[in-house]
Amino acid sequence: MREVVIGVDIGGTFTKYGIIDRNGNCLIESSIDTNSGNGVEAFLKDATKAFKNDLAKFSDVTLKGIGIGAPNGNYYNGTIEFAPNLKWKGIVHLVDLFKKNFNVPIFLTNDANAAAIGEMIYGNAKSLRDFIVITLGTGLGSGIVSNGELIYGHDGFAGEIGHTIVRHNGRQCGCGRKGCLETYASATGIKRTVFKLLADSLEESKLRSVSFNELTAEMITEAAKKGDKIALEAFEYTGLLLGQKLADSVAYTSPQVIFLFGGLAKAGNLILEPTRRHLEDNLLNIYKGKVKVLISGMEELNAAIMGAGALAWKELEK
Amino acid sequence: MREVVIGVDIGGTFTKYGIIDRNGNCLIESSIDTNSGNGVEAFLKDATKAFKNDLAKFSDVTLKGIGIGAPNGNYYNGTIEFAPNLKWKGIVHLVDLFKKNFNVPIFLTNDANAAAIGEMIYGNAKSLRDFIVITLGTGLGSGIVSNGELIYGHDGFAGEIGHTIVRHNGRQCGCGRKGCLETYASATGIKRTVFKLLADSLEESKLRSVSFNELTAEMITEAAKKGDKIALEAFEYTGLLLGQKLADSVAYTSPQVIFLFGGLAKAGNLILEPTRRHLEDNLLNIYKGKVKVLISGMEELNAAIMGAGALAWKELEK
Repeated sequence: MREVVIGVDIGGTFTKYGIIDRNGNCLIESSIDTNSGNGVEAFLKDATKAFKNDLAKFSDVTLKGIGIGAPNGNYYNGTIEFAPNLKWKGIVHLVDLFKKNFNVPIFLTNDANAAAIGEMIYGNAKSLRDFIVITLGTGLGSGIVSNGELIYGHDGFAGEIGHTIVRHNGRQCGCGRKGCLETYASATGIKRTVFKLLADSLEESKLRSVSFNELTAEMITEAAKKGDKIALEAFEYTGLLLGQKLADSVAYTSPQVIFLFGGLAKAGNLILEPTRRHLEDNLLNIYKGKVKVLISGMEELNAAIMGAGALAWKELEK
Repeated sequence: MREVVIGVDIGGTFTKYGIIDRNGNCLIESSIDTNSGNGVEAFLKDATKAFKNDLAKFSDVTLKGIGIGAPNGNYYNGTIEFAPNLKWKGIVHLVDLFKKNFNVPIFLTNDANAAAIGEMIYGNAKSLRDFIVITLGTGLGSGIVSNGELIYGHDGFAGEIGHTIVRHNGRQCGCGRKGCLETYASATGIKRTVFKLLADSLEESKLRSVSFNELTAEMITEAAKKGDKIALEAFEYTGLLLGQKLADSVAYTSPQVIFLFGGLAKAGNLILEPTRRHLEDNLLNIYKGKVKVLISGMEELNAAIMGAGALAWKELEK
């Protein structure tokens, strides 16, 4: 018999999942609509059916656990709490709901924490006890590992580096405050930077013909690769603010490596180079020359599922 | 036989130490000059003699270990590295030196980390797994505890919240950078704030007759207690910047309590009230109403020694 877990990544539109063995082989990968029915009970029904159907395709597997990554996921309570991007409102006791249908241990955390655990179990952090994963998507998520353990904090919500302040009275953030790192360093942040640069300078740019709503991080990356000065300057500025703020992060937990992950990390050296340079420039002396900034080692496609699966395996081995 | 450790607190001028049992009773407390002779070998000789003399005063004790708190102390290497306030330059292998003369386990960390462990073992954090200790002295030191363990980071130097940036391009810091929290929130920081306020306003104040070199945090506290508006405004501003920056700290490790300790913490509510208010105002929504700011539960007099002793006891029980 092969022992497996199910790794589940809940998104606003789709929920992806995979059946994963201890070595990180994904036996099957699939997805369901997060909102096919009305509310979380309908989702539970759909997910249960899909998981059981897929498990039944393998005669030799035993389900040992389920790991779930979800926005605003709370590790201690097994809940999703006030997630702005999900249609389920308030506090959803998701682990309790799943336990009705699956008689195995079930674990839940937020998506960035799951990414960090994935990095530790299957990615480039296998030998590391102190590292940080930064996910650069629509927002900026983070998972912090110290002494080989993910930092959950007393309430399960630790690791919100995207909502630390990089500029006092800076850009308006969706959280209601101003100057949060994610308003600068994220796919949305770099769009805002491009528009600021287009406003401030008279530099020609292909990006002058694109609306804010149409503009994507990929388009900025493409333009930068072709030498567009506005796009290049936007990456430089993003790296400046990310590097400055990661110097703070180092002063908190002194990680050996900071991994970048997600949409904006796909720009590779365009984001890595200025981030590394400005991080190094801004580090306190005792940390200089010690901290690496690397692209995540998780396959982009499977990362969220694998991270959720890794959460389950890590917890089962405790 | 009573089992004891020696807790040692190395300062620029004096080194204080105590013989401490498992329950936190300090059997004897004393001090030696840090620089009586020439260099660290002379210190080792003095310390060895003093420790052995004092141990010999008790017929019923067995020495189990030594814990040392020191500026720029490195937990992993047992070294003091480039401490600006000590006369020993470069990297001092202090634990190795002491091991020549004492055949027991010897542990070393920086003074703020020792304070945090003291808080956990003997102070107000006995039941807490996630908390932060902020020491408000000449500078701002910090010890961060997550999952019940002190965060040392990969290099032993984690927890330098005093050197995270609260104002981009702000006040010049002794570390060579600008805008570090400790340039605002420390005994020195509040002095600088008083002088800024004296420059900016025409408000009458007793503090207008005191030079920068003469001014102390105690004098500012006394003036504030008598209603001096400049002094009161200086505490308000200190609490503003400390509260704003501690909101970042919460986003990293989500502590249940933040303890204030050291010279400026003696001002009590003068510093607590604005810090609490501005922390709460600046917290991300998910953290609001969850984090306490309290004065440390360690006796001021013994705190550094007790913290170093607690380090030894905690390590011996691992």
